[in-house]
Amino acid sequence: LLDKNLKCPGFDSRSIGVFDSGFGGLTIMKSLIEKLPSESIIYFGDSANAPYGDRTSSEIIKYATDAADFLAQKNIKILIIACNTACACASKIIKQKLSIPVFEIITPSFQTVLKESKNYNIGVIATRATIRSQIYKKLIEQHNPKARVLSLSCPLFVPLLEEGHFDNKLALNLAEHYLKPLKKKKIDTLLLACTHYPLMKGIIQKVMGDDVKVIDPSLACALNLLSFLEKNGISSLNAKPKYEFYTSGDTEKFKNIAEVFLEKKIDQVLKK
Amino acid sequence: LLDKNLKCPGFDSRSIGVFDSGFGGLTIMKSLIEKLPSESIIYFGDSANAPYGDRTSSEIIKYATDAADFLAQKNIKILIIACNTACACASKIIKQKLSIPVFEIITPSFQTVLKESKNYNIGVIATRATIRSQIYKKLIEQHNPKARVLSLSCPLFVPLLEEGHFDNKLALNLAEHYLKPLKKKKIDTLLLACTHYPLMKGIIQKVMGDDVKVIDPSLACALNLLSFLEKNGISSLNAKPKYEFYTSGDTEKFKNIAEVFLEKKIDQVLKK
Repeated sequence: LLDKNLKCPGFDSRSIGVFDSGFGGLTIMKSLIEKLPSESIIYFGDSANAPYGDRTSSEIIKYATDAADFLAQKNIKILIIACNTACACASKIIKQKLSIPVFEIITPSFQTVLKESKNYNIGVIATRATIRSQIYKKLIEQHNPKARVLSLSCPLFVPLLEEGHFDNKLALNLAEHYLKPLKKKKIDTLLLACTHYPLMKGIIQKVMGDDVKVIDPSLACALNLLSFLEKNGISSLNAKPKYEFYTSGDTEKFKNIAEVFLEKKIDQVLKK
Repeated sequence: LLDKNLKCPGFDSRSIGVFDSGFGGLTIMKSLIEKLPSESIIYFGDSANAPYGDRTSSEIIKYATDAADFLAQKNIKILIIACNTACACASKIIKQKLSIPVFEIITPSFQTVLKESKNYNIGVIATRATIRSQIYKKLIEQHNPKARVLSLSCPLFVPLLEEGHFDNKLALNLAEHYLKPLKKKKIDTLLLACTHYPLMKGIIQKVMGDDVKVIDPSLACALNLLSFLEKNGISSLNAKPKYEFYTSGDTEKFKNIAEVFLEKKIDQVLKK
């Protein structure tokens, strides 16, 4: 009890570590900033090795464990793997390796979509690598045998969003092009299973129509984390939380894109 | 004279080596196949390190010299650096290092546009990295002080083309979006200064209108090489030339994209 008191139970001002192969995880960070406004965050984007989807499993494991080690050395209290490919390939290994809690984004994503769907006709859109892995399809259908998952890859959404086209004619054209096959099916929920896609949620909702619930899993991830921090008494009370950014790629490019993704000015991005 | 006869003067059946950071150089290879149908070609796409435009100069020099060495060890008679970024950063170093002739694509490109323009209002479109370097603007204006170069980057053309959208509504929408500022200027020639862009020459021509001559430099590169081989008596007479492909990235992805770029079936792609 004394020990606990000395450690100031109920509070832990250390940062949350978030990593992604590039920029996509910034949508997770954005939801964290919104839902957990007292938490400091250190983000690492492994842009030099992005996209992980083009790499072999052993390459992804190497990059992801390197990234996790890099953040773990920065005295973080929790690590979030905010990259679908890294979650699928390396989250088990990283959990075994690190002594801090490690969160991945796949579980809260598929749980949210199962909670929201009424007819269990579920659409999933993601990158080609994620769709090919069938990870969401398998998990959803395994947890609810009534569910039917229609998966679709939208490979040009990521470059489009990284160029800042969230909500214009180009984004609309491309969304109409990709989502056409899904519109013919009677899905009632559509999971955005790529961390970039929440940036164009508005356009996707417009194309799919009001009868389809478009699920941005970054909110579920943030709320999940919030309840974990509170339950374990390791929330932070920083009035001025710190946001730090590292990339293995070009720092200037990272800064420009990150400011667009976060809708927020960034002081500096450091090279890993 | 005897020596020359023994070496079979006038012919050299060794392959031509072509390298690019990824797929773009395949448009150069396509023109070579068309204009030099007896030449065997070995292509290397350094996809694991693409795009070079996001790398530092010293990284590009390392990757490009590694790529050049890799092809030089395959007993090629000539090397073509079919990548604008590698040409700009590393062609001098590679020329010094290799004992075979090394061709780059920048010189034939700007020479062709200067030959074709009448009013010397010249448009140049390329990737962001090439436009930022101002290499074409400087070279063109240096060789003809009357020339005015209007440069424009079209960053989404490369991912669009690598997804196979050459000649559809998406390609048209994107070309209209990017080329709008150029259409207002009185350019009479438009240089495609990115090796990918010739794939959408038709769409670009359509958007720019018949008064603008759209220059695909891959043809000039091929004709340049043809005359060099003939002058130096090192053409090949292979009735069945061999085409070999290597990539540092995913071989399956490379094969799929390369077949689309070359409009030709490929037997195999080997991992470097």
